[in-house]
Amino acid sequence: MFSYKIDENLKLVLPQLHHAEEIAAVVRENLEQLKLWVPWATDDYSVDSAREFIRKSLKEFAEKGNFGAIVILNEKIVGAAGFHKLDLTNKSAHVGYWLAKEAQGKGLMTKSCRALNAYLFDTMNLNRVQINCNIENVKSRAIPERLGFQLEGIHRQIEFFNNHFGDWAVYAMLKEDWEKVDN
Amino acid sequence: MFSYKIDENLKLVLPQLHHAEEIAAVVRENLEQLKLWVPWATDDYSVDSAREFIRKSLKEFAEKGNFGAIVILNEKIVGAAGFHKLDLTNKSAHVGYWLAKEAQGKGLMTKSCRALNAYLFDTMNLNRVQINCNIENVKSRAIPERLGFQLEGIHRQIEFFNNHFGDWAVYAMLKEDWEKVDN
Amino acid sequence: MFSYKIDENLKLVLPQLHHAEEIAAVVRENLEQLKLWVPWATDDYSVDSAREFIRKSLKEFAEKGNFGAIVILNEKIVGAAGFHKLDLTNKSAHVGYWLAKEAQGKGLMTKSCRALNAYLFDTMNLNRVQINCNIENVKSRAIPERLGFQLEGIHRQIEFFNNHFGDWAVYAMLKEDWEKVDN
Amino acid sequence: MFSYKIDENLKLVLPQLHHAEEIAAVVRENLEQLKLWVPWATDDYSVDSAREFIRKSLKEFAEKGNFGAIVILNEKIVGAAGFHKLDLTNKSAHVGYWLAKEAQGKGLMTKSCRALNAYLFDTMNLNRVQINCNIENVKSRAIPERLGFQLEGIHRQIEFFNNHFGDWAVYAMLKEDWEKVDN
Amino acid sequence: MFSYKIDENLKLVLPQLHHAEEIAAVVRENLEQLKLWVPWATDDYSVDSAREFIRKSLKEFAEKGNFGAIVILNEKIVGAAGFHKLDLTNKSAHVGYWLAKEAQGKGLMTKSCRALNAYLFDTMNLNRVQINCNIENVKSRAIPERLGFQLEGIHRQIEFFNNHFGDWAVYAMLKEDWEKVDN
Amino acid sequence: MFSYKIDENLKLVLPQLHHAEEIAAVVRENLEQLKLWVPWATDDYSVDSAREFIRKSLKEFAEKGNFGAIVILNEKIVGAAGFHKLDLTNKSAHVGYWLAKEAQGKGLMTKSCRALNAYLFDTMNLNRVQINCNIENVKSRAIPERLGFQLEGIHRQIEFFNNHFGDWAVYAMLKEDWEKVDN
Repeated sequence: MFSYKIDENLKLVLPQLHHAEEIAAVVRENLEQLKLWVPWATDDYSVDSAREFIRKSLKEFAEKGNFGAIVILNEKIVGAAGFHKLDLTNKSAHVGYWLAKEAQGKGLMTKSCRALNAYLFDTMNLNRVQINCNIENVKSRAIPERLGFQLEGIHRQIEFFNNHFGDWAVYAMLKEDWEKVDN
Repeated sequence: MFSYKIDENLKLVLPQLHHAEEIAAVVRENLEQLKLWVPWATDDYSVDSAREFIRKSLKEFAEKGNFGAIVILNEKIVGAAGFHKLDLTNKSAHVGYWLAKEAQGKGLMTKSCRALNAYLFDTMNLNRVQINCNIENVKSRAIPERLGFQLEGIHRQIEFFNNHFGDWAVYAMLKEDWEKVDN
Repeated sequence: MFSYKIDENLKLVLPQLHHAEEIAAVVRENLEQLKLWVPWATDDYSVDSAREFIRKSLKEFAEKGNFGAIVILNEKIVGAAGFHKLDLTNKSAHVGYWLAKEAQGKGLMTKSCRALNAYLFDTMNLNRVQINCNIENVKSRAIPERLGFQLEGIHRQIEFFNNHFGDWAVYAMLKEDWEKVDN
Repeated sequence: MFSYKIDENLKLVLPQLHHAEEIAAVVRENLEQLKLWVPWATDDYSVDSAREFIRKSLKEFAEKGNFGAIVILNEKIVGAAGFHKLDLTNKSAHVGYWLAKEAQGKGLMTKSCRALNAYLFDTMNLNRVQINCNIENVKSRAIPERLGFQLEGIHRQIEFFNNHFGDWAVYAMLKEDWEKVDN
Repeated sequence: MFSYKIDENLKLVLPQLHHAEEIAAVVRENLEQLKLWVPWATDDYSVDSAREFIRKSLKEFAEKGNFGAIVILNEKIVGAAGFHKLDLTNKSAHVGYWLAKEAQGKGLMTKSCRALNAYLFDTMNLNRVQINCNIENVKSRAIPERLGFQLEGIHRQIEFFNNHFGDWAVYAMLKEDWEKVDN
Repeated sequence: MFSYKIDENLKLVLPQLHHAEEIAAVVRENLEQLKLWVPWATDDYSVDSAREFIRKSLKEFAEKGNFGAIVILNEKIVGAAGFHKLDLTNKSAHVGYWLAKEAQGKGLMTKSCRALNAYLFDTMNLNRVQINCNIENVKSRAIPERLGFQLEGIHRQIEFFNNHFGDWAVYAMLKEDWEKVDN
């Protein structure tokens, strides 16, 4: 029902339970890729897993203001983008995202994250937006680099899944950075 | 952030905490009219009251799927429209709404409620949508009548506020009615 | 332990867990009839279902003042009568009931509901008591009609069970009606 | 609404919120006496205190099966009697009571506690009923002694109020005792 | 991590989840003896049962100040000792304990309970410490008797397990007793 | 009651409510220093604030295994040290600490944090321990540097208090680092 229009073909949509089947389908189609980078992408990912994501996303939105939106290109779900750990005291949040293979290489996630930045810095008046990427996930790291985030550090062995500890490249943009960028 | 576009100028928007000031302002401007018809419109209506409405609305959306959207005309809040008592067992819901005086007489609420009907009957696949109007509220009653709802009964003395018991005209539309209407 | 005496042979009793076996037995004996009219009467109705009814009834009584009493004729459970949706702001409640076939035709439920009316209007000082009957349930509709309730409307397709949508005849009595009736 | 009849004039009644005023009045009339023996009888006992007792009593009844009933003589509240610590594993409960001065000396509480015993041993099938009395409260201790309870011990300095530690005389009756008594 | 040293070889330790395996092992080794006296010692006692004990013990400590510590002799778990029903209004608590067969006869539990007494009377400033022993458990009764507790009564048939009702010998020590004892 | 001995004079103690007065006193004596570095050190810090810290610390310990211990030197409270964000999936935790001015310069906190490391890496079998220090807090940064933690990055403007955004120096030690250090 509720969406945020980015351009003629692209929008962010607050997920509702009737999206569960389509979300599960696109996750399953991209499972091999997703399994490399996110712990929630497991071989038993199902429509119930998607429902769980939707319920959690709406609950976070209602209770804390965080949201996980689905990315829709030409009326088809192609990924998700949102933020969590919204902290109004310290005026910060963490952005996260993933995109189906078929939709990559068109700048869609860069546009989506720029829209999130605009919302977080301009509407919510935050001071700091952080993005954590697996150090080996080159495509994911390209987003904050393209948007002008600064690499602040490498956190070693900070996340365990697929039987090994992964490192994070931690990027952040400050409000003062955002205001200098020509968006 | 998230909205449902009805036409070029009109949209339904899921309220967030940053809307509280504007909601409180428009409620206070229309307080004399609203006090006649709804129990929540009281002389002490404040930004905190609006925040309470927003929190409750988002919580209902997350937990039960009900929502109370704000109606925005040309980027200005002019009312609210939504539904509650969503009942997936009996496939029914109750629609409610109010509109600022300055925005009345232009068919905005008829369009908004038609959009809600489309969502409830077509997307949510409900079978029955009910609207309860105070029996003396002629403008409010015009909405279900214009949309083709059927008057099913008068519930006497069913709501107490402003020191008297008010009657409700109870309207309902069934899915079979909706499908016959030329929307 | 606790009862409300209606006449020498008839009383309303607040159910306790030790009543579960007898309640389940009388529900199961009347299952064919009950299944036509109430969604909770299902083929797997058991002593646990009765315990659930008892716990819910006592919890409602403790938290909201609503109760579901069992109807006892000559020390034998023959049905249930009570009210729910007690609303002290709008001074209203909804009455509901069912009676075993063997006990029908003796005016027992009319007496029981008159006792509930006396409690709701006189002790609780309510203004409106509502009874919703399935439109086709002639015996059930006879109760509010005999007691002087007014038919306020027909709500179409408002309840789904047994694979079809049923209509409700909605009856209500106001305090001003009750005081005119010669009880 | 709901009561247990002991004899023509005497009954135990499950308290409801509309009893709060009368309960508060009788407690306040007997405050000097009650303050000697029970910690809840304080100088600021009010209608709200009575409402709190009623809510707690109904909640205990709904959740655990314990109750605190009011004792009514000729339609006037004259005390309370009930039980707590209902333990279905060990088949035991603790009985407690108090009586207004004007109603004392007529055997009312002995009758009331005999009715509680009948309920606890015969209906609930318990094995042990305990009564704790302040060691100096001669009138209170007379009840278990008259009913055939056995004094099992003296618990020293076990309850603190009114700025000193009081001792308890602990009485108990077993099911085997109850069945020998000619009630 | 956290312990209370009694002497060179003996300490009380707040249990943590990593103790579960060792606790389960010592309980299982002593099951025949424990089954005679405590209801929680059952044939299916497992590492999960020990985890449940640990979680409950830590929760009680955090929320109410009660604790159940494990008794460690030369870095080996040999029993448990602690208190429950801490009551700051009436300044009282109940002490409980058990000891593995191999560790009995060395005065370890007498030392442990003396340490608990010191904590309860001196640090927590309580007025009364109670110990309930099964009347037939001679070894358990020796502890309060050796420490100078007074036998206050015999509670008949107060605990049901192993298919029969057991009696309790109830012992208590008052602060005034404690201060007279030469500890 | 419960403590972890580091050396003859130094121990970590799980705080209990009876420590509140002494904790509040030492915080207030060190308030000017603490206010520079931690948001909870405010001008209205009171015994109630200390009680809140204790309750939260015990609750975290019981529910999640995290703890905040008090550091005791020669029976006097001189600071606190503990860990939070215990994450058993990713096998990590964050250590935090503060020390009274009078106790600084003696290596007490280095010893305390080495004890925490031993507990986290050896007993809890974690893989990563993180310490976040305000970038300007030289004394605090000396602890992880002395213990062999690695500086992984600088998080800019990540914490807001005292009316400005502070930066964090983020240090971490891995299990593989710990095992190489000669402790």
